[in-house]
Amino acid sequence: MRLIGLDPGLRNTGWGVIEAVGTRLIHVANGVVRSDSAADIASRLLQLNRGVADILERFAPDEAAIEETFVNKNPESTLKLGLARGAVILAPASLGIPVTEYAPNRVKKAVVGAGHAAKEQVQMMVRTLLPGSNAIGPDAADALAVAICHAHFRQTGSAYEKALLMAQAAGAR
Amino acid sequence: MRLIGLDPGLRNTGWGVIEAVGTRLIHVANGVVRSDSAADIASRLLQLNRGVADILERFAPDEAAIEETFVNKNPESTLKLGLARGAVILAPASLGIPVTEYAPNRVKKAVVGAGHAAKEQVQMMVRTLLPGSNAIGPDAADALAVAICHAHFRQTGSAYEKALLMAQAAGAR
Repeated sequence: MRLIGLDPGLRNTGWGVIEAVGTRLIHVANGVVRSDSAADIASRLLQLNRGVADILERFAPDEAAIEETFVNKNPESTLKLGLARGAVILAPASLGIPVTEYAPNRVKKAVVGAGHAAKEQVQMMVRTLLPGSNAIGPDAADALAVAICHAHFRQTGSAYEKALLMAQAAGAR
Repeated sequence: MRLIGLDPGLRNTGWGVIEAVGTRLIHVANGVVRSDSAADIASRLLQLNRGVADILERFAPDEAAIEETFVNKNPESTLKLGLARGAVILAPASLGIPVTEYAPNRVKKAVVGAGHAAKEQVQMMVRTLLPGSNAIGPDAADALAVAICHAHFRQTGSAYEKALLMAQAAGAR
């Protein structure tokens, strides 16, 4: 089962592809799709949408996951996030790839074991859970975190959950 | 020159197609693309995007216009508006149709002649400026208003502007 996590932003949209094989998680690839901040909004949304569509074609994930949007206090930022998110979600939706949303604290809980972990803790834990995924930038790490969360919730109660808890305990040491 | 105006909303996205022939504006068609509020967000964005893409294919406008978003005080509403807007803007952008944004008061000024007109005034004026466009709902009227605004600003200073001012004066009587 191949999963993609997406972390949409108008400037940088992080993505991360993993494979869930039984209780194991394998890192496949990660990166960032960027839009040109000097371009008009329609062009930027198109760059994000096409960029993500290219990744989906290249890695052919079975399912996609995305973090529920953090509603910013600044309405302008919230609007920009909404625009980017709409353009990004459309890419898997157009290809018939199911998209699941997760609340930020569920993502943190799945990855770190606590719903109120710091951003840096999540990123460190992503690197621990996915050996071989060196040099992950923050946007891609957030995308991989939601992919891990999706792997977790798809299999809650399974042997996978226990393996994850053990890995988390080992990572915390 | 055929123009489409778009008024994106997650539930209802209004659209209106007009033709600008010299100083004349001709109503071509208008309507609303709806998304199923019981569906998940990815499906709803896909419904909006595909619905607008169908309209673009059917009426083949040369250019598109959209009102700049009113940033709502409610962050949840702003986010939803952003999502819908992103999905809707992508439709013309994907087809290489240029999209121009207009501030709400520019749209009002172009249609009614005053930047602070009431919504009802704008809708009444749209019906006056586009005879033959009977039974326009509010979402489609707002979409036609931004299409009229685009026709106006594409030709500012031209004979068209004078004709529009005369029509506005006649409509106000």
